[in-house]
Amino acid sequence: MQPGGRPLPVALDAMGGDNAPGEIVAGAVQAVRERGVPVVLVGQPRVLQQALDEFGATGEIPIVRAEEALAMDEGALASLRRPRSSIAIACHLVRRGDASAVVSAGSTAGVVATGRLRLRGQQGVVRPAIAVTLPTRPRPTVLLDAGATADAKPEMLVQFAHLGVAYAQVGFDMATPRVGLLTIGSEAEKGNKLAKRAHELLAAAPGIDFTGNIEGHDLLTGRVDVVVTDGFTGNVALKTLEGSVRYAFSELRGTIEESRVAKLGGLLQRARLRELRDRLDPEAQGGAVLLGLNGTVVIAHGSSRARGIAGACELAARLAGQGIVPRIGERVGSTPRSHRRR
Amino acid sequence: MQPGGRPLPVALDAMGGDNAPGEIVAGAVQAVRERGVPVVLVGQPRVLQQALDEFGATGEIPIVRAEEALAMDEGALASLRRPRSSIAIACHLVRRGDASAVVSAGSTAGVVATGRLRLRGQQGVVRPAIAVTLPTRPRPTVLLDAGATADAKPEMLVQFAHLGVAYAQVGFDMATPRVGLLTIGSEAEKGNKLAKRAHELLAAAPGIDFTGNIEGHDLLTGRVDVVVTDGFTGNVALKTLEGSVRYAFSELRGTIEESRVAKLGGLLQRARLRELRDRLDPEAQGGAVLLGLNGTVVIAHGSSRARGIAGACELAARLAGQGIVPRIGERVGSTPRSHRRR
Repeated sequence: MQPGGRPLPVALDAMGGDNAPGEIVAGAVQAVRERGVPVVLVGQPRVLQQALDEFGATGEIPIVRAEEALAMDEGALASLRRPRSSIAIACHLVRRGDASAVVSAGSTAGVVATGRLRLRGQQGVVRPAIAVTLPTRPRPTVLLDAGATADAKPEMLVQFAHLGVAYAQVGFDMATPRVGLLTIGSEAEKGNKLAKRAHELLAAAPGIDFTGNIEGHDLLTGRVDVVVTDGFTGNVALKTLEGSVRYAFSELRGTIEESRVAKLGGLLQRARLRELRDRLDPEAQGGAVLLGLNGTVVIAHGSSRARGIAGACELAARLAGQGIVPRIGERVGSTPRSHRRR
Repeated sequence: MQPGGRPLPVALDAMGGDNAPGEIVAGAVQAVRERGVPVVLVGQPRVLQQALDEFGATGEIPIVRAEEALAMDEGALASLRRPRSSIAIACHLVRRGDASAVVSAGSTAGVVATGRLRLRGQQGVVRPAIAVTLPTRPRPTVLLDAGATADAKPEMLVQFAHLGVAYAQVGFDMATPRVGLLTIGSEAEKGNKLAKRAHELLAAAPGIDFTGNIEGHDLLTGRVDVVVTDGFTGNVALKTLEGSVRYAFSELRGTIEESRVAKLGGLLQRARLRELRDRLDPEAQGGAVLLGLNGTVVIAHGSSRARGIAGACELAARLAGQGIVPRIGERVGSTPRSHRRR
């Protein structure tokens, strides 16, 4: 909150993403006008001013200057070379208390590296994790880590469980989220060395409702609320899932188009299909959340358009407003010391 | 070949699988009668004799006695405790030259452990791998390892590439299969430690057409012919893929049933959908192949019915007939000594 009770704005990296800055500014306007989320745009003032003018939103959304930007193909190292990039300045605004959270559609590697460098890890959190939500019903399933920490230790997976539980509680109102470990068999002794040791630690961890191992085919069944895995496996699983759903739809379209009889049916169904595809669209979920830093960072899909950006701003404002960072602090602070390593 | 030029039979574990022995025997009858694949059934003679009688196939398919069987929930250790199990005897038949290959729908862990113990690894192969095929078109994509070796070393991934190339050449007539490494970014430096080191080794490996990294969403696009990964990641990816396709279909069915207008379309399309689902069905692919042992082992899906078993027998006979084991021997024999570790 700012003095006077007005909520702090979300710092939106206006230069990150395939469609920056046009769709990012459009998303900011949507967030402010349609969702009541205050936003500050971070980027090149001249360009952003012009974009705001086009929406008739001049003066409606403040701009903070950042002349540099990370390119989408720039990785983690660029964040060190560019202390004045739009994503770095956005993190800086959160750090000094001028913004509640960061939203960026920039390259994931760049956002993660910049976030770690500028916001630093929360007290007691060894490594951050990226949490995504899978489109299960009635409640989404939180999967983490989706790619922040490719080489994880078993102790980190226990921390990821705490991050995921906090996210499920704060973001989706789940009182006692059920936690599952992603591995390759339901028995405790199944998996690689990392998963087997993580299973032991999770089973003994206080404050985690650990239901045991789950497998790849359980990800979309809603068997658990939080899926814990290392950033390598989680990223492969997430992209495999997205690619497979896309494949199933495209095969289906092919099947419909091949058959004259089925074509009629396909036409009738087109609207329903579109609706379903929208629900499965990662953009509709608002974005991935980088957890474990001193500030909330939402990473929108690189190809996000205005709607996706507005959703990401709303998610960021909600998580910050509900205090996800202190919630994680409480949970990880309760982890026995032997599980924390630096 | 047996003396006289008749091909050796496939040794079929008649006691393995959720539907053993009924569907297994039915599959053997299909393999023999409809696909011209000679089969020998391994299991409890009384039970198998009775099943053959029901098909009017008495005397048509030989039976080799094995009174014990591995239960579906028995893991790797059971294979040590049960030297006279049906899967162990089936391996023994190959070992002593009385059968060309093994087919089992038993538990994957049990089949892998028994195969390793009874057939032993081929000269120069450090660890076996399970190869599966993904339903890309016009040609399938080979993915390995799908779960035999959960903790792999980078050198093993290079060997898996050789196993996969041999499988693609022998099984699917691909002259120079393109090999990709499954990881979490297209640049060489993306991934966990295992993937980064494997990338370096694959790029330098003679006899492998290495095209670089691929990601989860590339698995069903046919970008490469052989996907190499460790057994943990490969198993998670495969099961995620199967679960996601199943999910997309069930969501689609739900969408159709919810809408009265779309329902009509759905009815028209039902036959086409069934056809598509059949093509994506792992059973239709014939089964997974355990590569790197002194004998071909095909692991059919645990829930296989007669058609799946017959397909697995046909695949096993083809791979053995085309000499996949010596083909792997040539390839791995050409691996520089520094890449082989025991």
